[in-house]
Amino acid sequence: MALTVAGSDSGAGAGLQADLKTFAALGVFGTCAVTAVTAQSTAAVLGVSPIDPGFVDLQIDAVLGDLPVAAVKTGMLASSATVAAVARRAAVGDLPNLVVDPVLVASTGRPLLDDDGPQTYLRRLLPHAAVATPNLREAALLTGVDITGVDAMAAAGRRLVDVGCRLVVVKGGHLPGGLSPDVVVDAAGAVTVLAAERIDSLNDHGTGCTLAAAVAAHLARGSAPLAAVERAKLYVRGAIAGAAGWRLGAGHGPLDHFGWGVAHTELTGS
Amino acid sequence: MALTVAGSDSGAGAGLQADLKTFAALGVFGTCAVTAVTAQSTAAVLGVSPIDPGFVDLQIDAVLGDLPVAAVKTGMLASSATVAAVARRAAVGDLPNLVVDPVLVASTGRPLLDDDGPQTYLRRLLPHAAVATPNLREAALLTGVDITGVDAMAAAGRRLVDVGCRLVVVKGGHLPGGLSPDVVVDAAGAVTVLAAERIDSLNDHGTGCTLAAAVAAHLARGSAPLAAVERAKLYVRGAIAGAAGWRLGAGHGPLDHFGWGVAHTELTGS
Repeated sequence: MALTVAGSDSGAGAGLQADLKTFAALGVFGTCAVTAVTAQSTAAVLGVSPIDPGFVDLQIDAVLGDLPVAAVKTGMLASSATVAAVARRAAVGDLPNLVVDPVLVASTGRPLLDDDGPQTYLRRLLPHAAVATPNLREAALLTGVDITGVDAMAAAGRRLVDVGCRLVVVKGGHLPGGLSPDVVVDAAGAVTVLAAERIDSLNDHGTGCTLAAAVAAHLARGSAPLAAVERAKLYVRGAIAGAAGWRLGAGHGPLDHFGWGVAHTELTGS
Repeated sequence: MALTVAGSDSGAGAGLQADLKTFAALGVFGTCAVTAVTAQSTAAVLGVSPIDPGFVDLQIDAVLGDLPVAAVKTGMLASSATVAAVARRAAVGDLPNLVVDPVLVASTGRPLLDDDGPQTYLRRLLPHAAVATPNLREAALLTGVDITGVDAMAAAGRRLVDVGCRLVVVKGGHLPGGLSPDVVVDAAGAVTVLAAERIDSLNDHGTGCTLAAAVAAHLARGSAPLAAVERAKLYVRGAIAGAAGWRLGAGHGPLDHFGWGVAHTELTGS
């Protein structure tokens, strides 16, 4: 069983919806604490309605007090106060197998957190992460490393290991060129490059959420952290490939989380 | 593709989580507008944080403006103002194949809506329902009929048809005794009794949400309304049966939405 602490995406391509779909697809019962509600389509975020940090904590209480959660994933936390609230739970050992996807900036460039956000992640929450999954921009914002390639990704990963993350996956999806290697750094500083060809698809909304959720699901099922990351990458790859031909919405469409392998016409009836 | 307008259940047994699982299990891409966030376990509701009705409407805007929604389900709407906001969309024809689960009272007896709620449902939203799915208590509250058996269920159903519902399913799950027939009344007043033996299970949290979501999913896939109800009942029956032996949480546990058919130990690792 897994818990996601994340925002709601009305279009359900990303956010807690992507997380819960991923958990389910991987055979893990999913629960959730909502940090913010967004009104968004595949093309734009129309609005964000944050949930009070104390109420986020109450949701976590309700779940952990009753259900046997084996892994926890954080997505968009929406405010430094919520990052700190989640960090307090982590610090007292309440959040097993914690996967932190440090959501700082939307793909549009819009900040998803206040100015204190990166420092609060760095000082409070990331030290408790079993796995952290920053993308290039997030890794650069958190570490100050100017990331131009695999070596810099490893350097940024090492800095996050230095603050306490036990495994860091610096995601290469935003690198220029046809390859998008992820660089994994473990607690001993050892680097593993997980090479991958980029899949050409407009439907990549929620890819980051899905990867982190899949890591949490595999940790809940007992995988070791590096194996969980490798399995999660395979799952994401399949979900991207399955949706590559879909035309759902005017912008970046969702993944095929359940491996339906159907045409989008079957999902829309048109 | 389907849209649920509903509350979030942190334990994920009911609410939009149950709806999205049901949509997915039935092969329908699900989207959602969050009306309220609850902190709840299988045993208790610790708190409810409502979302502003205008922001519920904005989420509906974001989805309908971008994605080809073929059916809409409403669950807990949390305030009369949100019922009215959804009704305004329905009145202008924005909400195809609208399934209204008139959530008025929690199974604990706790009211989930203000005092104007039942009248706002009756006058504003239910007239636009393709299918309405009240339980016994909700049917009694909405119609004033004292419901003691199948005849009274049919009478209550007819009153809801009189306000404009095109098909009404009065659910018999709370009838005393071993049978739990649902009584369906169509727009012409014709009555169909869908007999069912009660399944003895502690894991029935989210049964009502799941039934209404399954009706919406089958409508989205092209079923006629009565056939959608019959298929939805079969789905719910399977989901209850699959979870009958689970022990997840201290109270009323979740259904087996995905037909996993596994033991609860496989979900918890213990």
